[in-house]
Amino acid sequence: LRRIIVKVRDGGYPIYIGSGILEKFPAVCEKHGIRSHVVIITDRIVAGIYLDGLVGIMRDAGFRPDVIIIPPGESQKSISRVARIYTELIKMKLRRDETIIALGGGVIGDLAGFVAATYLRGVNLVYVPTTLLAQVDSSIGGKVAINHKFGKNLIGAFYRPVFIFSDIETLKTLPRRELICGLGEVVKYGIIMKKDILDIIEDRDVPSGDNLKIYRKLVEHSANVKSYVVSRDERERKYRMILNFGHTIGHGIEASLNYKKLKHGEAILIGILAESFISVKRGVLPKVDFERIKKIILKISKEIPHKEFDKNSILKHIYLDKKIMNQRLNMFLPVRIGMMRFFDDISFRELSMAIDYIKEVFF
Amino acid sequence: LRRIIVKVRDGGYPIYIGSGILEKFPAVCEKHGIRSHVVIITDRIVAGIYLDGLVGIMRDAGFRPDVIIIPPGESQKSISRVARIYTELIKMKLRRDETIIALGGGVIGDLAGFVAATYLRGVNLVYVPTTLLAQVDSSIGGKVAINHKFGKNLIGAFYRPVFIFSDIETLKTLPRRELICGLGEVVKYGIIMKKDILDIIEDRDVPSGDNLKIYRKLVEHSANVKSYVVSRDERERKYRMILNFGHTIGHGIEASLNYKKLKHGEAILIGILAESFISVKRGVLPKVDFERIKKIILKISKEIPHKEFDKNSILKHIYLDKKIMNQRLNMFLPVRIGMMRFFDDISFRELSMAIDYIKEVFF
Repeated sequence: LRRIIVKVRDGGYPIYIGSGILEKFPAVCEKHGIRSHVVIITDRIVAGIYLDGLVGIMRDAGFRPDVIIIPPGESQKSISRVARIYTELIKMKLRRDETIIALGGGVIGDLAGFVAATYLRGVNLVYVPTTLLAQVDSSIGGKVAINHKFGKNLIGAFYRPVFIFSDIETLKTLPRRELICGLGEVVKYGIIMKKDILDIIEDRDVPSGDNLKIYRKLVEHSANVKSYVVSRDERERKYRMILNFGHTIGHGIEASLNYKKLKHGEAILIGILAESFISVKRGVLPKVDFERIKKIILKISKEIPHKEFDKNSILKHIYLDKKIMNQRLNMFLPVRIGMMRFFDDISFRELSMAIDYIKEVFF
Repeated sequence: LRRIIVKVRDGGYPIYIGSGILEKFPAVCEKHGIRSHVVIITDRIVAGIYLDGLVGIMRDAGFRPDVIIIPPGESQKSISRVARIYTELIKMKLRRDETIIALGGGVIGDLAGFVAATYLRGVNLVYVPTTLLAQVDSSIGGKVAINHKFGKNLIGAFYRPVFIFSDIETLKTLPRRELICGLGEVVKYGIIMKKDILDIIEDRDVPSGDNLKIYRKLVEHSANVKSYVVSRDERERKYRMILNFGHTIGHGIEASLNYKKLKHGEAILIGILAESFISVKRGVLPKVDFERIKKIILKISKEIPHKEFDKNSILKHIYLDKKIMNQRLNMFLPVRIGMMRFFDDISFRELSMAIDYIKEVFF
């Protein structure tokens, strides 16, 4: 059971990482003062695999777990779903000093986290992430959110969990496409700060969930990078924007496909390559580093199903909400693998060329 | 322009208090780094009195104020209203570094505060309270909330404003019944910590909104008491419960009348007398202090319209959510005017006798 602390102003919270560690969960809860009554929020798919195990272990240890099971999918991150969960929590008499356990991937984490942040002005929150993406990214950093019909994650809060409990064994049953999504963020951490990550991925049979040892290493490295960034800038003043690497163009791609066809992590993988292209074209990133990034991205992303991009639509979504279409953008770009620099003058033309490039590479 | 600082962990925020100070508002905004684009949230009644003035002053100073006007009343503190405000804010393109100004009483403060806490994971919040209750109580302390059909303020957050701006002149147009409500909390502050408040009220023509100088003093004293308590215990671990004096029985009365007939502050006034009765009966509070409290409460509350109490219903609401009807309750009680002590053994019988007492006094 490895422990990484996310140090933040006025406190901090630990991430526990290990393989096959579920049985240790009740003891960790007790250590953190979690009281008897807890409510586990999860989705139907995750429930089918882990819920009975978790509930049984909790009961055996003297906890009194209630359960809320919702349908899977991003559409659950809605105000109406949140309202219905509030009602269930009140009926379950969840009190202010009791705890919500978010068991699942990013959607469950964001949704249950938002509920925990706002029910009775905030109850205890514990993350048990069951996807690679949630283990390396969404459970760490204190952001919770739901969607609005006009945009994703527009409603939310900064809210810290009591702790995060990442059991790598949950990745064994994860669909291959979900693994690829998580690897998008993992590669990002490698490029922005931790060269070791790229070394591991380059030489191994990744994406494959068989070798849990490799994933344990990747999750640990990734959690370290994200913790470090969040420790320096929890509220996203500026430095935390480094985590947006790959996301400006990645989000544009996702949005241009109406959030269908491509998953978030898949779009981010392509976005990373596109933004690295901007950097190498500027003469900022050495060509040898760019070629290495490209090789790794192509290896992971070769199974991504849909690669048809509408350049104008992508550009439109990137510039949405900005007043001037030609306005220069802010962006951290790699200057070599493991090191980033902030730029405030990314032009429309550079973005346009980067999208041309990925259209070429992925066809 | 008097300034009181609410000192809290990791920061603080000022309360500006003065009479006829609206014209200074833009300069105070600028001093606190408020950007050009702001959204004022207010209700129809307050809008009719103050909105044009505020908007004009803001525009003249170079700000770009948008306005959201909602109907008045507690029923607006709903999830559906919050959802509609989110939509308006998105259409107004309010950005993360911009500001929501809550112009109005407690309902507007709670509602606009909750929106500010959750829109884009939190935007700047400024309170311009226009009722005595909001100036002395609800705008101070960082609590924001909306209601759920199963109970009041069940959904909420702790969220700090950038500053609070209390113009005493707004009290001139306040209905007399609203003044009485605010005085409930003011008297509470006097009993728990600031004897001066009772001296002022005892000798003056209160409740009457004519003498703004008196109200300015009362608001300053009250803001000082509340700031002090919040500084010591922002998250309501224990000490902040001192502010619940009068509220255990007061809430029971309100709830037993289904939140109709009596206003919150009116119920609190009666609750203060009832809880002081428990204290004097215990031999904890000197009789002379109790008589003084009684005299002041009766003076203020003589205009309260409805005084019919159903003891069993009140007791039921007090014990709602507790498992055992006879469970002993926690409560701060006065040991003399200006000093409180914590008790964890308030019995059903004491509550019952206290309600008998107020039934007798108010009939």
